[in-house]
Amino acid sequence: MSDDIRSRTFDFKSAGGALEARFASKFTIAPGVRDHHGHDEGWHAPARPDGVLFAATTEDVVDAVRICARFGVPVIAYGTGSAMEGSVNAVQGGLTIDLSGMNAVVAVNATDMDCTVEAGCTRSMLNSFLRDIGLNFPVDPGADATLGGMAATRASGTMTVKYGSMRDNVIGLEVVLADGTVVRTGGRARKSSSGYDLTKLFVGSEGTLGIITQLTLRLHPIPEHVLALRAVFENTGAAVDFVVLLMQMGYPVARAEFMDERALEAVCKYEKLEYELRPTIFLEFHSSVTPLEDTRQAIQELLEHCGVDAVHFAEDAEQRAEIWKARHNAAHAEPLLRPGAKAMVTDVCVPLSRLADCITETQRDLAETGLCAPIVGHIGDGNFHLAILIDPESQSEIEEAERLHAKLVDRAVGFGGTVSGEHGIGLGKRQYLEGEHGSGLTVMKTIKRALDPRDIMNPGKIFLPAPIGFEDRGPIDDTPE
Amino acid sequence: MSDDIRSRTFDFKSAGGALEARFASKFTIAPGVRDHHGHDEGWHAPARPDGVLFAATTEDVVDAVRICARFGVPVIAYGTGSAMEGSVNAVQGGLTIDLSGMNAVVAVNATDMDCTVEAGCTRSMLNSFLRDIGLNFPVDPGADATLGGMAATRASGTMTVKYGSMRDNVIGLEVVLADGTVVRTGGRARKSSSGYDLTKLFVGSEGTLGIITQLTLRLHPIPEHVLALRAVFENTGAAVDFVVLLMQMGYPVARAEFMDERALEAVCKYEKLEYELRPTIFLEFHSSVTPLEDTRQAIQELLEHCGVDAVHFAEDAEQRAEIWKARHNAAHAEPLLRPGAKAMVTDVCVPLSRLADCITETQRDLAETGLCAPIVGHIGDGNFHLAILIDPESQSEIEEAERLHAKLVDRAVGFGGTVSGEHGIGLGKRQYLEGEHGSGLTVMKTIKRALDPRDIMNPGKIFLPAPIGFEDRGPIDDTPE
Repeated sequence: MSDDIRSRTFDFKSAGGALEARFASKFTIAPGVRDHHGHDEGWHAPARPDGVLFAATTEDVVDAVRICARFGVPVIAYGTGSAMEGSVNAVQGGLTIDLSGMNAVVAVNATDMDCTVEAGCTRSMLNSFLRDIGLNFPVDPGADATLGGMAATRASGTMTVKYGSMRDNVIGLEVVLADGTVVRTGGRARKSSSGYDLTKLFVGSEGTLGIITQLTLRLHPIPEHVLALRAVFENTGAAVDFVVLLMQMGYPVARAEFMDERALEAVCKYEKLEYELRPTIFLEFHSSVTPLEDTRQAIQELLEHCGVDAVHFAEDAEQRAEIWKARHNAAHAEPLLRPGAKAMVTDVCVPLSRLADCITETQRDLAETGLCAPIVGHIGDGNFHLAILIDPESQSEIEEAERLHAKLVDRAVGFGGTVSGEHGIGLGKRQYLEGEHGSGLTVMKTIKRALDPRDIMNPGKIFLPAPIGFEDRGPIDDTPE
Repeated sequence: MSDDIRSRTFDFKSAGGALEARFASKFTIAPGVRDHHGHDEGWHAPARPDGVLFAATTEDVVDAVRICARFGVPVIAYGTGSAMEGSVNAVQGGLTIDLSGMNAVVAVNATDMDCTVEAGCTRSMLNSFLRDIGLNFPVDPGADATLGGMAATRASGTMTVKYGSMRDNVIGLEVVLADGTVVRTGGRARKSSSGYDLTKLFVGSEGTLGIITQLTLRLHPIPEHVLALRAVFENTGAAVDFVVLLMQMGYPVARAEFMDERALEAVCKYEKLEYELRPTIFLEFHSSVTPLEDTRQAIQELLEHCGVDAVHFAEDAEQRAEIWKARHNAAHAEPLLRPGAKAMVTDVCVPLSRLADCITETQRDLAETGLCAPIVGHIGDGNFHLAILIDPESQSEIEEAERLHAKLVDRAVGFGGTVSGEHGIGLGKRQYLEGEHGSGLTVMKTIKRALDPRDIMNPGKIFLPAPIGFEDRGPIDDTPE
């Protein structure tokens, strides 16, 4: 990539030799493996690393980072490659550390409702492990991502409206820093006022400050009572207004998802469903102690008050599963609307009071372009995604999509919102960071420079590669080995 | 203080002249005012600043910090002085900026359930302002602290068990950095994955990274249904076991507070109450939509199952207020047990599964000393306080109390807990930070040094004043004025 001026200024050959000597067959430079690790599920141009290490232990990560530090080689953490913003693309080359083999559930404390896992453990692995003890890890980004990757991206998902995001549910971390130091942040207490909140600093840092190798997570009881439904509205404004009203009323909303006509069209094709192709809200309520019959009645009345067209309650677990499978497969289904296209996915999140305006004004902008962009959203949180279906070879389409995106971001930030609700900055949203954070961006760069002075941790992500005073990446001799 | 080797290396006379020229009567060096600002409610030796500024605007804070930066003068933020760990004591001299005049409620967004306030607004001011619109800010540390101070300390309180602490309820900040730059962090969206979480970094940083001048806070509906009660147990273990069990069951616990015999004795004396002087749990439940009759019945049964001695439900708002006034006045009442004493207050927080052990083992340690230390706790969070009543003039008592404290901290950290649940580190808990955080302490120092290279922001707090590579504090000429 043209803007990555600092790439290729390091000596991978020497680093590769040291890595091979230390790791033997766990380290590879096989082109197929490098290709596989050079991209995520987003639309960004792939960029393969110079080598890949399949780490089995924290010590592996420490030794690999030390070797890379010695030779000034970039280090990129990789989980399942399910991110959207090019977070794993090795735009400056270097070593990718694949953590998927570090997938153990290290400890579960049922009384305290917490657990410790290795970074490569996925959320479905963890939830399978937990099922028998009635607990659950509810952060659910759709993809079966690794928990380390989800923490790095500060991911959220459909159940964040009730249970919070990774920000709220990661209570401790083990992180390998740029010099190979292992840091353990946070702890298992429910709260703490002991020093700077390093856990929250590393959560969402996208591998640019260190590599997460272990996480301590808050767990939640599997709810006793669940109520799910699909509500169809005449137009988007009515659907969004209903959710905003619902959110103010104190019902135990666990999911509040929106899909527009195009998104439903894609999903119905993909899943062979016959849902109405009109703006739809998927809802779920959870309760531990109080049955939800009263809630069902109250929600039915509220929906009618808000002018709903049709309400379909899920009457059993199977019908519930169908709804959420449909919702989760939107990301895979949407490209069906335009074969060969890739989705440039927007991710703004705004205060609920501005959500209806933000979506409907954006739909108006969209209609003025020639672009196809189904919309889905975690709208109980104020977060929605346009999947702008672009031909990745067409520069003019990319530019038109970027103009739409830029307009959306301006609107969201103007409404007190954010450029990214849950996907992170990666490569695709770096240009919007200054507009959102102003002088806060300088603070972020100061922290990055202090903790990774030679910019070897996932370089080129979050920050545009403008000169921000990093030290030279030339080899150093002072790393103990 | 002997360990503050860097104090008095700056030129306050020149700084004072510039402050007087800029601020006229808002700036003072009057001894009485300086004395008033040289201590909080804790036991630490007072240390008065060289001058005090009564700030009225963020611009005042910016200009004052710039002047102080130019002359290398320490800057300490002051709210109401209700902290416990000497957070405002000017141990290296300098300028104290009193923010209590900046107490406006800047904006309330009822639909989004958030608000923006100036740092000097207290929680009771805010809640008076909110009462008519049915919203509430529930973080409640007892004292009527300023919200800026509460954020700086990452405070919590009796309702954190349901609503979270300042960590969870501060969603955005305006902060003045060590060079006078104004940074706005966070925003009003319910979630974000946009860059490093600076809000969470400044929350709990105790004024060592910058001065909070404005906060955006999450609000909560005033609950429709409230149930409160006082439950008396034969012994501490049974009382704690009951709360741990209760916390696992999913009832809407809003407060779960413990007081031991000594704490009750003090409070009954102070408030002229006739409560049983046995281990007692104060409970409150909140619900927005579901009435709590069923909960009342279920809790009564659970209490009997756990061997409760006596249960007293609060039958109206007045009886509820009595319970919580008693609980909140514990801090003021406890010194009555030993006239002239000061309370060295411990603040550990441990996972719930270890709470009964942690309290009962500590009671055993306490019994082996000659010390009097009533115990209260936010035990739904695993957080409890010993108020060790010491003669602040007696070095041997201080040492004995510190030995007890150190043993308690070791135990709590060994249990996966923290040295401070809610009071912060300040002066009193600095020596325990390395034991809890290990190499994480180095990361904290790296961040401090990067954002405040000359150590002028509340120096001597959080970190022991060992040499950590700060730059010289001599005057600089490059500050724009």
